Amino acid sequence: MWESASVLTFVSIIECRHRLQATIQLMGEFDLIARFFTRPAKNAVLGVGDDCALLPGNAAMQCAVSCDMLVEGRHFLSTVAPERLGHKALAVNLSDLAACGAKPRAFLLALAMPRVDEVFLQGFSNGLFALADEHGIDLVGGDTTAGPLNICITVLGDVPQGAAFLRSGASVGDDVYVSGNLGDARLALEVFRGALALEPEAFEAVRRAMEMPQPRNVLALKLRGLISSAIDVSDGFLGDFTYVLRRSSVGATINVDVLPRSAVLAQRSADLQRLCTLAGGDDYELVFTAPLQHRTAIAVASMQSGVPVTCVGCIEAKAGLRLIDKQGHAVDQKFASFDHFKS
Amino acid sequence: MWESASVLTFVSIIECRHRLQATIQLMGEFDLIARFFTRPAKNAVLGVGDDCALLPGNAAMQCAVSCDMLVEGRHFLSTVAPERLGHKALAVNLSDLAACGAKPRAFLLALAMPRVDEVFLQGFSNGLFALADEHGIDLVGGDTTAGPLNICITVLGDVPQGAAFLRSGASVGDDVYVSGNLGDARLALEVFRGALALEPEAFEAVRRAMEMPQPRNVLALKLRGLISSAIDVSDGFLGDFTYVLRRSSVGATINVDVLPRSAVLAQRSADLQRLCTLAGGDDYELVFTAPLQHRTAIAVASMQSGVPVTCVGCIEAKAGLRLIDKQGHAVDQKFASFDHFKS
Repeated sequence: MWESASVLTFVSIIECRHRLQATIQLMGEFDLIARFFTRPAKNAVLGVGDDCALLPGNAAMQCAVSCDMLVEGRHFLSTVAPERLGHKALAVNLSDLAACGAKPRAFLLALAMPRVDEVFLQGFSNGLFALADEHGIDLVGGDTTAGPLNICITVLGDVPQGAAFLRSGASVGDDVYVSGNLGDARLALEVFRGALALEPEAFEAVRRAMEMPQPRNVLALKLRGLISSAIDVSDGFLGDFTYVLRRSSVGATINVDVLPRSAVLAQRSADLQRLCTLAGGDDYELVFTAPLQHRTAIAVASMQSGVPVTCVGCIEAKAGLRLIDKQGHAVDQKFASFDHFKS
Repeated sequence: MWESASVLTFVSIIECRHRLQATIQLMGEFDLIARFFTRPAKNAVLGVGDDCALLPGNAAMQCAVSCDMLVEGRHFLSTVAPERLGHKALAVNLSDLAACGAKPRAFLLALAMPRVDEVFLQGFSNGLFALADEHGIDLVGGDTTAGPLNICITVLGDVPQGAAFLRSGASVGDDVYVSGNLGDARLALEVFRGALALEPEAFEAVRRAMEMPQPRNVLALKLRGLISSAIDVSDGFLGDFTYVLRRSSVGATINVDVLPRSAVLAQRSADLQRLCTLAGGDDYELVFTAPLQHRTAIAVASMQSGVPVTCVGCIEAKAGLRLIDKQGHAVDQKFASFDHFKS
């Protein structure tokens, strides 16, 4: 836990930002962990500071575990505020627990950075712990090292035996739902890329969606027992939902005009709206399927958790994903999902 | 699980090596996971391919969890064979489970790399799975992304309630033990740095110690119930053992001349031997303490696991670490442990 070993140092894009920051002081690895990342564990038997963290076992529960690695320029831009980066690094991991219906329990943080930058670390840990506190989970261990900026978080959660949402559970006749809105993160990315401009207020709203995604864990726990499959949308609706269809050996028809979107995105061109909602990426919303008889219960879960939920289509026996518009006309699938090694 | 999101590409030292390799083909992230990192899970309820992996719960067991991040040039050199890198990335994590007395159960792999290099991936996954199979554990999930080479593994293990080895358990009068040999990895590093030369056979032996450390999990399980504290030596004996002393609020006297070392290291100068055994780093041996009445049982555990164990000193009430030589004379503590942000 929080361990180390050997030699060189690298250069990263964030170094430019670091040079601009007011206070840069050097401290050792263990001072760093003590100052920024050590807090008393609430739920763990043993937290940061030994070779392993220890979590109590529970025969009634399965342990859900997932990890996500975030690399600068690929998962976040160098312009992101450290607080937001701390939030996002944990949020994308919590989103995996939500997609599986697991209650968040603890997390580990592995962090490589070019040098110890106290301003960055203070902001990063503030954002990280604010979200951790919101979900009542402990940072129980991890690792720090010098290297190109890289953030790898592992989350652990609990789910009752057999209650996990799987990608393979969708059945013919099920409704298809999406939580929150799709596409704002992609719209913000297009502004950062210089492809379009937005009014400051509109830009701040979509930038916030990109930099501070809200994982849907509260909604997910209320959906236990109601839904047949789930996935979180990280690489775009089209690509991610296709995994559910393949795993479940079913097909679906989706009405692209009812895919939920923000007022800001709804003012853009029809083509841009489709690109952003269908193949946006970085949404961290849940897409899930459920039998018709749970429509009312799902509406109640949505209201109780304060997260809007939209029915966007239905599961069918015929393989493949068919897109239609509000007139029922077929829509071309010209958008591809995001692939890290092809984009 | 095995997830992703946004844009650039970086340059890393390994790119030079990659250009020299015969077969370089591009493939997508999901092809890559399917080809190199997907095998049926033996112990998990659900392995690679969903949002989370699911592991069965057990009320009698605590879940031990730890993660280590490896960065090129810092935890391994660009000259390491991919098979050995795969081995080492998992070995250093298994070593944390050994230090805690936990039985290895499953692991997750997060991997950032500049591009998809099939030769590298085949070698890396071969080395990784060979060690995983030796310890009977499953790769249950992870993440892949483009970025500067970075390997982050999270391991999970089981330890009966209250049976974990903690750093805080050393008592006055306990013996202090070290498994295997210390210092070979550091000796190899000095050769790579050009500070000294070794005969080819001797170099291969110490290079193997550096690149293919053998985690002491089999020994650790046999030490359950016998020992009072443990830590694995990753940053050098002096620094790591000092954590045990501080956490346990005790001191110790260590005979530096009995610290175990290989025949290759034993032929070097006395100063180099002390540097390598006391402050070498990358040893991944266990240092542990145990009451005198367990001496015989510990010798049996050592024989049964085929891992030599050496008694190197004793725990005392007086705080601090005192080093003596075989004549009983005090030895200067002029070596510092490794710190990633100060070295």
